[in-house]
Amino acid sequence: MSHPSNAQPPSRRDLLKMIGLAAGSSTMLHAMSSLGHARQSPYKGPIDLSGAPEGRKVVVLGAGLAGMCAALELRSAGYEVSILEYQKRAGGRCWTLKGGDEFEELGGYKQKVEFSKGQYINIGPWRIPHHHLALLDYCHRLNVPLEVFVQENQNAYLHSQTAFDGKPIRYGHAWADYVGQITELLAKSVDKGRLDSPLSKEDTEILLESLKSFGVLNKDYAYEASLDTAEYRGYPDAGAPGGGLYNAAPEPSEPIELTDLLKSRFWEKMRNHTTYRHHAPMFQPVGGMEEIAHAFAREVEDLITYNAKVDRIKQTENGVEVEYSGADGEGSGGVETADYCVCTIPFTILSQLEVDVSADMRRVMRALHYHEAVKAGLEMKRRFWERDEQIYGGITLTDLPIAEISYPSAEMHSDGPGVLLGAYVYGPQAYAFNSMSPKERLETVLEQGAKIHPQYRDEFSNGVVLSWHRVPWMLGCYSDWDDRGRDYEIAATMDNRLVCAGEHISYLPGWQEGSLLSALDAVRQVHDRAVKEG
Amino acid sequence: MSHPSNAQPPSRRDLLKMIGLAAGSSTMLHAMSSLGHARQSPYKGPIDLSGAPEGRKVVVLGAGLAGMCAALELRSAGYEVSILEYQKRAGGRCWTLKGGDEFEELGGYKQKVEFSKGQYINIGPWRIPHHHLALLDYCHRLNVPLEVFVQENQNAYLHSQTAFDGKPIRYGHAWADYVGQITELLAKSVDKGRLDSPLSKEDTEILLESLKSFGVLNKDYAYEASLDTAEYRGYPDAGAPGGGLYNAAPEPSEPIELTDLLKSRFWEKMRNHTTYRHHAPMFQPVGGMEEIAHAFAREVEDLITYNAKVDRIKQTENGVEVEYSGADGEGSGGVETADYCVCTIPFTILSQLEVDVSADMRRVMRALHYHEAVKAGLEMKRRFWERDEQIYGGITLTDLPIAEISYPSAEMHSDGPGVLLGAYVYGPQAYAFNSMSPKERLETVLEQGAKIHPQYRDEFSNGVVLSWHRVPWMLGCYSDWDDRGRDYEIAATMDNRLVCAGEHISYLPGWQEGSLLSALDAVRQVHDRAVKEG
Repeated sequence: MSHPSNAQPPSRRDLLKMIGLAAGSSTMLHAMSSLGHARQSPYKGPIDLSGAPEGRKVVVLGAGLAGMCAALELRSAGYEVSILEYQKRAGGRCWTLKGGDEFEELGGYKQKVEFSKGQYINIGPWRIPHHHLALLDYCHRLNVPLEVFVQENQNAYLHSQTAFDGKPIRYGHAWADYVGQITELLAKSVDKGRLDSPLSKEDTEILLESLKSFGVLNKDYAYEASLDTAEYRGYPDAGAPGGGLYNAAPEPSEPIELTDLLKSRFWEKMRNHTTYRHHAPMFQPVGGMEEIAHAFAREVEDLITYNAKVDRIKQTENGVEVEYSGADGEGSGGVETADYCVCTIPFTILSQLEVDVSADMRRVMRALHYHEAVKAGLEMKRRFWERDEQIYGGITLTDLPIAEISYPSAEMHSDGPGVLLGAYVYGPQAYAFNSMSPKERLETVLEQGAKIHPQYRDEFSNGVVLSWHRVPWMLGCYSDWDDRGRDYEIAATMDNRLVCAGEHISYLPGWQEGSLLSALDAVRQVHDRAVKEG
Repeated sequence: MSHPSNAQPPSRRDLLKMIGLAAGSSTMLHAMSSLGHARQSPYKGPIDLSGAPEGRKVVVLGAGLAGMCAALELRSAGYEVSILEYQKRAGGRCWTLKGGDEFEELGGYKQKVEFSKGQYINIGPWRIPHHHLALLDYCHRLNVPLEVFVQENQNAYLHSQTAFDGKPIRYGHAWADYVGQITELLAKSVDKGRLDSPLSKEDTEILLESLKSFGVLNKDYAYEASLDTAEYRGYPDAGAPGGGLYNAAPEPSEPIELTDLLKSRFWEKMRNHTTYRHHAPMFQPVGGMEEIAHAFAREVEDLITYNAKVDRIKQTENGVEVEYSGADGEGSGGVETADYCVCTIPFTILSQLEVDVSADMRRVMRALHYHEAVKAGLEMKRRFWERDEQIYGGITLTDLPIAEISYPSAEMHSDGPGVLLGAYVYGPQAYAFNSMSPKERLETVLEQGAKIHPQYRDEFSNGVVLSWHRVPWMLGCYSDWDDRGRDYEIAATMDNRLVCAGEHISYLPGWQEGSLLSALDAVRQVHDRAVKEG
């Protein structure tokens, strides 16, 4: 496989455009299928930085995934590399909280994690799409075992305070009943010849057949309570039909009426969870997301200076000089000099430092918005969601401020405790949580979750609630480009001798894949410059 | 939890019927939700057979899951139990083939499994729904570790010999594009006021909103190539957007046109794989399905006489007498006497034996049809489906006779070999395979699979193809009631002192849950009779 920097301009795209223009999209599709296997993603396998000049030095700011990836590849290419890291741990947002961990937020809020042995919460990123090729390849190269992360669970709930008397409904019921009833509307309309469609008579007949099958409609194109629909939406008692004689025969279950589904606006919550990046299967590292950070750290730990708060980044025509001091107020600090700098410090922080960059870059750094997010990890004494409610992994969605309850994909079926993601608060609701003490946040999370799982009160053991806006080295959760067209290229282009990297320098904000691809692009820019300068 | 035999008649159902009749289905739904948590499935937890009279003996025929479950519960209740098993192994169809295993089919076809260490194929049942409560509970009680079985994979293929020039398309593309385009048809129809629907004006407006969101339609209610639709159906190169500058920006992908999707009849293949019993997440035992059989065998192995071919089952008013001989032509054979008999021998075999049962039971035994099935396990040197095509687990569906290719859910991301389920042939096509030698079958499976994965020819290492109709102790794969209303109750009811059990005596034919629930119902009948007889 060839590296992007050696690849030709995308002539395939031009070719496809020509085909598309000349022959319409159906031909275009066939052409795409035949060319499709050749190019899978911007990631093409390990980066090739051959031909690095000797004696060149790069300072990397930040030992998150982007910084450690850049350092790993640059050192491997022959550069001298050092990393300055604010925290006393590597990994950045690739962070797993376990029993015994302590952390402090701005405002002096301290929390200690009390989880049982083996229990954890991935308080930052928590799932890996199967098409995040760079991340998967690094997991492979660095021996990080992965397991399936259950994203979609049709037995998890959709909950709205104003629908169904505030009672949660099963995701699979909403889905089957909505699809059934919209296909019913369409099929009846087609059947009566009312459809104004471009389809031929023959295709219209096949359409009707397909709607009947896809929507599970009866011979009159109606979606109704029947053993057929129960076979797809499930049976009345959420279990399977039986064996032998007693209570064994299946029964129809009663669909939810379309008007009730519409009033519940269930699709709004569902929409963000059905994108390509959430397609099954997703993955998680065995033992916690931070295993990825640990794997990178095993490679580059010797390059990292911890507890190093960057105070000033000077650039001259010939090099970069980074002044730092002890982040905890202790430690000696110092000055790190290098030929080039890969800077993964989030713009929330970087924009507050003295940095020699162009005026454009400074404007962009200041303008970039970071999303707020509050996440809670709740240890429950018993995995009641599994034993009482047959929910194994997956996510319940609610219009309560907690927004999500996610059930652990690890240790399913165990008798022991389990840690729920008890809240993933975003938007304005997160600001309300930001202003609460950890104890108040926890109480709020429990109060809201108990509306969906009444077992909360009996089963709760201990928990933590992290506000990403209060994390001193982040001041936010992940980036959101307000005007990508205006700003992104500036942010992603090497500015004199400094190049930025991290999820914010990617089209995958908030995803680790974005960090890694950005880091690879940054080291390519450093390398190209170094080769040019000799 | 109470046992079914102590439960009241289902007054809940009557109650719901009354509510439904009085107030319409919406009210009925609410009533169901509020009552819904109380009753989950015919399985209510461990069976209670207290009060067994002393000194009663039960002979169990067959050491498959049903037989071993019956034996375990009866012994635990105080009965004296023995099991006669035709094979030299326990488990029946709960069967995992591993390197070194050998098996022989009718006609003298012998196959030896050559898989690498740690590789296996579940040649019988291979997945566990999350609502198969009895099976999950026995796994829990008997310490069988489970892992996620990936059933749905939107990156797996749909393949039709006559559509898309015989090239496979990704499941997720077909799904998104079909849903997009049928919602477009419906939304445009609604928008133009052409819909003859019972919805109010307000609901119609919400319906339009929901269709736009659910189908990913643009402002004119069209489903088209755009970054919005790419966010759901995926990007042109099946990877993610990138980071940094180079080739990073996402591009729209081109939807498949509805007419092409309709001609491909993709939904026909999909339909059987989207039922409630296939809802995510599904499970499999770590190390192979047969781990469940091993777990049961650990409990009841001391009760089993292996290599015991049942020749005759005599019943009198006072007891049962089972004559058996060595299944391999050796061994001494003997006669087993008992008060009652739980018979899990499949009707394909049982109907050929001398058995004292009622004329009705004999008719039913002879009439029951068993599905044919041929399954192939193919070891490939490299997991090319993962590394080349980003398919991790899940099932490709094709209209070729092989019907399915399933990718292993175990050891995903490993560098080692992997075993594909290379075929799951059913229907008339299975008969064609039945008439081939194992070598011819294998060649056919490889030839067909290579049309979907050209890598087959380079990567194939070794394989086995089992024809369930040729398995001497089964002569079929699983049962199918021709006229359940006429026959099922006869088959499931104790006939003098003999009661049948197994997947065929259930409403879940072909599923292990059916076997277990049937076994529990059978032991309940035995116990009720024994208590009555004192």
